[in-house]
Parts: sequence; C-alpha cells; structure tokens
Amino acid sequence: MTLIQEKVSQAIDILKQQKTDMWLTFVRETSGVRDPALDFLIGDNDLTWLSALILTRKGGKIAIVGNLEAEAVRQLNVFDEILGYDSAISGLLHNTIARLNPDGIAVNTSRNNVHADGLTHAMYEFLKEYLAGTPYANRLVSAEPIINALRGRKTPTELERIRKAVEITNEIYEKTFAFIKVGMTEIEVGEYMLKLAKEFGVGPAWPQENCPAVNSGPNKVVGHNGPTDIRIERGHIVHFDFGVKYEGYCSDIQRVCYVLREGETEAPVEVQLGFITIRTAIEKSREAMKAGTTGNSIDVISREIVEDSGYPEFMHALGHQLGRVAHDGGTLLGPLWEKYGDSPNQSLELNQVYTIEPHVIVAGYGCVGLEEDVVMTTAGAEYIGDPQKEIVLIRG
Amino acid sequence: MTLIQEKVSQAIDILKQQKTDMWLTFVRETSGVRDPALDFLIGDNDLTWLSALILTRKGGKIAIVGNLEAEAVRQLNVFDEILGYDSAISGLLHNTIARLNPDGIAVNTSRNNVHADGLTHAMYEFLKEYLAGTPYANRLVSAEPIINALRGRKTPTELERIRKAVEITNEIYEKTFAFIKVGMTEIEVGEYMLKLAKEFGVGPAWPQENCPAVNSGPNKVVGHNGPTDIRIERGHIVHFDFGVKYEGYCSDIQRVCYVLREGETEAPVEVQLGFITIRTAIEKSREAMKAGTTGNSIDVISREIVEDSGYPEFMHALGHQLGRVAHDGGTLLGPLWEKYGDSPNQSLELNQVYTIEPHVIVAGYGCVGLEEDVVMTTAGAEYIGDPQKEIVLIRG
Repeated sequence: MTLIQEKVSQAIDILKQQKTDMWLTFVRETSGVRDPALDFLIGDNDLTWLSALILTRKGGKIAIVGNLEAEAVRQLNVFDEILGYDSAISGLLHNTIARLNPDGIAVNTSRNNVHADGLTHAMYEFLKEYLAGTPYANRLVSAEPIINALRGRKTPTELERIRKAVEITNEIYEKTFAFIKVGMTEIEVGEYMLKLAKEFGVGPAWPQENCPAVNSGPNKVVGHNGPTDIRIERGHIVHFDFGVKYEGYCSDIQRVCYVLREGETEAPVEVQLGFITIRTAIEKSREAMKAGTTGNSIDVISREIVEDSGYPEFMHALGHQLGRVAHDGGTLLGPLWEKYGDSPNQSLELNQVYTIEPHVIVAGYGCVGLEEDVVMTTAGAEYIGDPQKEIVLIRG
Repeated sequence: MTLIQEKVSQAIDILKQQKTDMWLTFVRETSGVRDPALDFLIGDNDLTWLSALILTRKGGKIAIVGNLEAEAVRQLNVFDEILGYDSAISGLLHNTIARLNPDGIAVNTSRNNVHADGLTHAMYEFLKEYLAGTPYANRLVSAEPIINALRGRKTPTELERIRKAVEITNEIYEKTFAFIKVGMTEIEVGEYMLKLAKEFGVGPAWPQENCPAVNSGPNKVVGHNGPTDIRIERGHIVHFDFGVKYEGYCSDIQRVCYVLREGETEAPVEVQLGFITIRTAIEKSREAMKAGTTGNSIDVISREIVEDSGYPEFMHALGHQLGRVAHDGGTLLGPLWEKYGDSPNQSLELNQVYTIEPHVIVAGYGCVGLEEDVVMTTAGAEYIGDPQKEIVLIRG
C-alpha cells in the first residue's frame, strides 16, 4: 500500500467517525497554488485544469479531472472512478454531487488551520456558482475537522519517517558541535550543516534562508532569520534551529551551546539558569500532555515557569504540530492570541507529533532556546530522539 | 539590484500605469499555502503568521509581519517600512490602510489566472472582517491586471534565465536523441534525461512524475502522464515533453523522433504529413503573434490548420505563458472554453514568453506534438532557441 492509499483509507474512516458525507478538494493549476491536502490525494503530482477529488463516507473515491490527466490519476491506484472532461467541469461536478446527494460537503476552507485552507476565494465562488439553485449550495462546511485528524494522526509509516528525520538532525548536530571553532561566522557553520544534510540525502525542513538558524552571542536578532557574518566568540551562547525533510516528513529541533572563556570549565551561572529554566519548562509541559487536554493548557505551563523564573514571556506559541511541513496545523500548544484563532483550544490526540520550544534571552550571552519533538502515545507524550539535557560546551 | 527589488520596482510602475492605489498580498503560514505573488515580494522565504505585504502607487513598500520575522524581511532590502506585531495583525492592518486611504485595494483573487489567486477564502473573510464598517471593505478589487502584467512582462534578467533553461533543455534533447536505442523502455530514457538535468545542475520544470513525458508508439496514452515500461520499437514515433528550471525560470519544449524500420531511410508519409502539419501550424501562429492581438486569435490559426489537414481538433490550448512555472497564467493562446475563463480574450504584450504546442495523433505510429518557446518583441514573436524543423530519425 502506498502512503497515499494509506492516507485516503484513513480519510474515509475519519468521514465515517465524523459523520460527514463528502469531502471535496477542488483545485486547478496546482503548480501555481497548491492545496496542501493534495499531498494525501495525489502525492507530488500536479493537476492543471479545474479538478475535483471526492471522498465519501460510503467509501467512494472519485476524481474529476481534465482528460489529458486521467491516465496519470489512474496510475495512482487511488480513485475508483475517474471522470475526464475537455472544456468545462461545471456540469460534470454538478451531476456527480447530485448523484451522491450528500447532506454535507466538506471543502478546504478554515480560519484556524492553513493546511485545511487550500480553497482560494475565486475557487469558492466557482463552486457556489456551479451549485447555485441546488440544495447543495448551502451544504458546504469546513473540512477543518477532517484535515486536522488526517494530518494529525500519523500512521506508522509517517511516524517512522519523522523518527528518521529526527535521527539525521541529531547526527548533524553532533558533527556540528565538533566542528565549531571560535572565529567562525554563523554563515560558515550554517553552510557546514547544509552540506551534511546533502550528504545524508535530505533537504532542509523549511527554506534554507533560515534553516538552519545559527545565532551567536548577545547581539544577534533571534527569530526566523538566517545566519550572518557574526563571528563565534568566547562567552557566546550559540543557538540553533534546524530540521530536515526525510521522504516528505520533517524534524524541527533547537539546540544550545556555550563557548567557554579562558579559564572557564562550565557556563556562567546566568546561562545555566536560563538552560535549567527552559529544560524544566519543556519537561513539565511534556509530562502534562495527555490525549484530550487542550493545547493551551500545555502552553501555560511553560509560560508560567519562564515568567516565574523572572524572564519575560516568550512571544510565540510553545509548540506546533510536525509532519509534512515543520509547522503543521491543527491543535497548537499556544496562547489565546487572535492570530492563533481557535487552534490553542483544540485537543491533543494519539499519534500527533508536537514540538515543545520555549526560549529565554540571557542578557550579555544570547538565546537559550531548546526545541524537542514528541509523539502522543497512550502513555502520554514521548520524546522522539534524545532531548538536550545539558548545555553543550565548546572549548574553542 | 536583486530580482525581487527589480520586480517590486516594476510592480510600482504597473500600479501607476493602472491607476491602482494599493496592492495588498495577505498571507499566513506560507509553508502550507503559498501565494505565488510571494516569489516577487520575498523570494524563497516563508512567512509564518498573518502577514500583509503592501505596495502603493506612490511608491510605498510596507510589510506587516510577526515580530520574529521582521529581521528576515529587513534583510531583503525591499520594504521601506516594516511593522512587527506579536498577537494580532487586525488593528495594525486596519490602521495602516486607513492611513494610506486608498481608493482601491487590489487583492490576490482571480477567476482567470491562478497566479493572481493566492488569497484563500478564509483569508478573504478575515480581510472583510478587519475592514468591516470602514469605507475600505468595499474597495477590494482583483489584482489580476497587476499580476498579469508583473508576471507576463519579463525583465532582461528573467528573459536571460529562460533562454538558459531553453539552451540546457535543447542540449539534453540532443544527447537523448543520440542515446535512444530500440528496446529501451520509456522509463530508461526518462531517467537518462533527469540524470543529464542533474549534471547541468537544474531540476525539472514540473514534477518529475511526468517531466519528461516520453511517449513511444501508438499504444501509449499521451497526456500529463509519465514514462512507462513500453519499449521503443522500430516504426514508433517517440514523443517528448520536457523542461527544466534554471534559477527559478522554466523551459517547456516538445520534440518528436521516428525510429526507422529495416530498409527505411525516412519516416513514412503519414508521419511526415503529421509533422509538416504541426510545424506549419506553429509557424503560422507565431507569425501572427503581435502585441495587442488576443490569445484566442492565435489559437484558432493552429486549430484550423490541424482540422483542415484532416486531423481531429487538439483538446487543449495552443499555448500558455512561461516563467517561474511552466504553466504561467494570464493571456492564454486558447479556445473559448469555460475552463479557460477570460484568459483567451486577453492580449499579447511585449516581453511575454509563450509556448506554442499543437499536436496530432498519427494512427499506428504515435503522437506528433511539438512545442516551441517564443518571446514577444517589437518585431513579433521570436523563437527562443532553434525550433524543430525536421523529424529526428533514430536508426536504432
């Protein structure tokens, strides 16, 4: 069974559980705008003309595509019914929906999860127009619950790929820690990490403009920006944010080193306090992660530990889901900020994969940010790969 | 000047020409759903949180982004004003629009051009909600004319990259014609072409599932599907559809060979007639391509030549624009079919790049499809690279 076949089968189970008659993915020219749901329906292929991929609660798998793409879709061995057309999809789509007569048609529009939001506004308008005057025009619902479940609940194949991505990332980190010397620039270190990734046959988990992020010392602006000409110096914290994509699945891990000054044998106490705070926040949040708890209830644990330790609040979510992209959507371990919508109120589920990534800035030294990847099991959240438990000391 | 700076400057000129006060690209988590306009605004970078990229007719270049991404956007040296936020974009966006007080706000929604259609339905709803109760809620217009012009009118830098992509593609074709032997499978030939592309340091112009397409003989289903285990035999037409992406810009070229049977020194007359028909259709269409003519008026020329020569109508557009993707949007050399919307009624312009790609099936032999890339100059459409003027004969 291919991964697409596995996920399509899972999607139909989800339709049954959620009692939704039909899931409709409606796209065109996907080389231009690509609905992220396509990864689970047609893999890396593109669809050129207006196309409708339909899964039903009764197990129907129907593709309505341009005639010149029917053969490519047939070769996926996913869809039982492939309807081709030349000049206009409207009639065929209308008739197919009328034949299936669904009570609800889930379409890919969502305020909370970008991965359930692949339907463009113009495509939404086409759909409303094609269904105008039928009972179906008012039966459109958001596919967010379907896609949250489908992307969130990793199959064994998906989990295995994420584990492998984490394993490779940790090996790259180990080699990088041995490579770093005082005087190197952040850019040199970043290029070395990308070279290692290439040797492992993997790409970066997000655009290499800031994958890895390499942040050395107190003057570096930390965020989603890349390595600079700043040189690694003694007394710097060197902070990394990096992940790789292995067979379509990502890791996302932050690590922290300290470059010892002459005479030092360990990091200064401020740096150690920062590290212990972050390490504790991660561990306490992880321990609280059980299926059914909300994402926000996990976020507040780390946020309180950081604030109670005297640091300012970190101005981002504690953690996000991980999968085909580093920032996978759905339930978020996040604060109740407008920009996060309803996602922090949603619940943790078995087989979801999350990052946990609080940070503090240690004045005069740099950023202490750790990021661990965990998978939800019946026993709670388990680390994927070994977490960083001690600050890595660089002797220069 | 970077390519992004070049295109942003061009975009502002277009706003002036079109008398549009503001172009707003409104996105979030672009690793999930990526608005194709971002290529010209932030290059390969991603934006995580709700972000607004604003260009104005007066030359304003404003980015409203999450604070943790402000530094990455600053480093692009594109935006004059970078406004960061932590928890909510709504107030900042509302205030910025009110301050600029535009008569019209062009947003990325379009029925005709997918590349002007990056605004998802949920993002459109957010925008309407943020602007509710202000005069601006009713001033949203489609950015289609802006994006058509911006993507269509290639700068010298862009043209140079496309020329290079075509040059590499033609070299790969030459080597492939010398490589083909009777008994090889389509898959073997396709893998060889991808190996050559890798040696040239370029990727395929569209997913390698069907790039190249390799179609040997009369039994192959021709379309957007990839190479199969069909073996090349004497008496087969071998048809290719292939392109590469060089520094972000594509080629898209079809070629045709004939595998001589024992005793043959040229292709059978039916195959030659098919080739001459297609070659003539391309040349006559190209000769008619002048700035200001509609795309449809060019499509009908080839369509008539093919039908008048006794072949069935080809069931696709004659040609499309070419740029950052193989199927770039805007004016289409196409028939007036519902699925193409208004794009065949739009006009040709200077510095646009088009494909011209009619085909016929020659019964018993296979597909004769040629595809040439042309650029619009003041003298009309000029071939990029040498067109195929004679069928390539494979001796086996």
